[in-house]
Amino acid sequence: MATFVERVAELKRIGRKACVDAFFVNSETNMRYFAGFSVSGMERFAGIVIPVDGKTSTVIVPKLEEQKVKEQSVFKEITSYDDSESPARLLRRTIADAELEDAVFGVEGILPFRFYRMLAECSPKIRVKEVSAIFSQLRCVKSQDELKKMEKAATILALGIKAGIDFIKPGVTEAAISFEIEKTIRERGGEGVPFCIVLSGSNSAMPHGNTSSRKVKQRDVVLMDVGAVYEGYNADITRTVFVREVTKKQKEVYDTVAKAQEAAIKTVRPNVKAEQVDAIARKAIENAGYGNFFTHRTGHGLGLEVHEEPYIAKGNKTPLRPGMTFTIEPGIYLPGEFGVRTEDDVVVSAKGARLLSNLSRELQVI
Amino acid sequence: MATFVERVAELKRIGRKACVDAFFVNSETNMRYFAGFSVSGMERFAGIVIPVDGKTSTVIVPKLEEQKVKEQSVFKEITSYDDSESPARLLRRTIADAELEDAVFGVEGILPFRFYRMLAECSPKIRVKEVSAIFSQLRCVKSQDELKKMEKAATILALGIKAGIDFIKPGVTEAAISFEIEKTIRERGGEGVPFCIVLSGSNSAMPHGNTSSRKVKQRDVVLMDVGAVYEGYNADITRTVFVREVTKKQKEVYDTVAKAQEAAIKTVRPNVKAEQVDAIARKAIENAGYGNFFTHRTGHGLGLEVHEEPYIAKGNKTPLRPGMTFTIEPGIYLPGEFGVRTEDDVVVSAKGARLLSNLSRELQVI
Repeated sequence: MATFVERVAELKRIGRKACVDAFFVNSETNMRYFAGFSVSGMERFAGIVIPVDGKTSTVIVPKLEEQKVKEQSVFKEITSYDDSESPARLLRRTIADAELEDAVFGVEGILPFRFYRMLAECSPKIRVKEVSAIFSQLRCVKSQDELKKMEKAATILALGIKAGIDFIKPGVTEAAISFEIEKTIRERGGEGVPFCIVLSGSNSAMPHGNTSSRKVKQRDVVLMDVGAVYEGYNADITRTVFVREVTKKQKEVYDTVAKAQEAAIKTVRPNVKAEQVDAIARKAIENAGYGNFFTHRTGHGLGLEVHEEPYIAKGNKTPLRPGMTFTIEPGIYLPGEFGVRTEDDVVVSAKGARLLSNLSRELQVI
Repeated sequence: MATFVERVAELKRIGRKACVDAFFVNSETNMRYFAGFSVSGMERFAGIVIPVDGKTSTVIVPKLEEQKVKEQSVFKEITSYDDSESPARLLRRTIADAELEDAVFGVEGILPFRFYRMLAECSPKIRVKEVSAIFSQLRCVKSQDELKKMEKAATILALGIKAGIDFIKPGVTEAAISFEIEKTIRERGGEGVPFCIVLSGSNSAMPHGNTSSRKVKQRDVVLMDVGAVYEGYNADITRTVFVREVTKKQKEVYDTVAKAQEAAIKTVRPNVKAEQVDAIARKAIENAGYGNFFTHRTGHGLGLEVHEEPYIAKGNKTPLRPGMTFTIEPGIYLPGEFGVRTEDDVVVSAKGARLLSNLSRELQVI
């Protein structure tokens, strides 16, 4: 409870500095972060109007969700509408009651256009500004309590990948391996598996490929990229293994990725810029001659969302701060041949990166 | 291929009538529907600019997705950006090349605010208009090919629910039942299970409750609301069953819901308004004295999205047309006691509603 009060107080403080009069929060993750309830506001509108001064914050939710929200929300001013009503009327009244008709509203970058229009149409003097950076700034540094949840998610996820590795043998399909991993994660207490991608053979060369019914064969590479959720918090781990044997080239690629990841992990410490971590990983891969085949950023922040700030990418000059959590996941993809990626989740501590999971990164031939 | 060409031609024709100069399509479902590729454009921007006149349509995707999109897209003008670049530059160039700097752009209601801003900032003369209704108008009437996919999804889903029912006995948890259903759906070829909600005892009285680790007990109600995807198309079915025995009140509620659903199904035929189907179901429940406990609309359209047009709700005066597909799912929720919902998927035919799935709706005590 204290946590939520602090978060909202900090949000208001930053809002005042940024000349925002009120926040208009609609995403499931930000409603969860600031108010403690978990509702999707995408199809049927749900949202919170949070004035930065002393005025009351108001929650607007579909009637269907009212009972749950009343039980969970730290904001106690809750208003609801049923399927025959429009939430626009409630929003207009909320804005009038809080005297926000000529306010600057801070909104999320993912706010759907139609809810932006609903807000803008409440009064011709309303101005709307994207303030995703303010939300990120708060959310990207995790508390001890949040880190515990993330470690738990990573621990459960590691068990899932271990089960997947044990399950792999020539003849099993990518889909069956994926299912084995997901089952294990759920049995171990994972509340969600947002993705569970298994790519074998030349499929592994597609960084965003889809799990198929392809059967694993001897000499295949098998790449597993999996997410798991525990109490709303995400873990995201990738492992690549070799079936029965490993070629010289595959070993060279695996070792190059491993070195790049290790170098990136060692670079992490407070005040290092996010892009430096990316640059170090990239350099290791370029030095080995595979620069053109590392086609994505080195990592992304992790928390209530699978992808959030800080992005470990060229151009991101954000200095790392203790408590920030993100993935480090270099990869090399040789089209038509195979791909290798190794991904782990880290938190920045005063001393450097601390791994959130404990899963072997050694080359495995199974 | 012909299908996509027809869809795009029809989109352009409607766009010209609606005084839209170009469409700016960003949602995964609409990109799939009009261009045939499946990419999420939410986090890393992906989108298509479709001028309504003879000019070329252009696809903008992250480099990561380029290979897949080139293989799948019916639009052959494809441009990509990597993680160190901004898609805004590509969008600006696309708009300049197509001379759309003073165009009226039609966008989706779910377009994220930050992509709306990216579009609006391409030129001060651009105007942006939500045209979700145009996309819905096209997508809500399904072709024979789409209906086959939806029937397949419903058939697979029915097998999942049957497996869930067979699995229920006192002592098993909601989560274990949910897992059994999901496993069956995946084994039978379902490519996704977007939700698999199992609620028992008084949990079933929360229309949007979450599956928990609660153990099923004798005399419980167990409500299963499940989605399944086949080749991108959704099915959505709910069944409520009784464990070992059923009370008089439970039977009365079940029979009332069954009558409401049957009455609604019989009302469906071309030119009947969507809200009339809702009104008939609602009236049946009101007549039995449970009007206050049917707290949601009677149904929603179904297709590439789980929820789309036409919504079977008060106020929706859309006349039903042959080929429209939607759920019919009345429910009664008695807080603290139990809830019952029965949900099936139908397509409008010249003769009336045709069920897309074949799963018993009889009261089951298991």
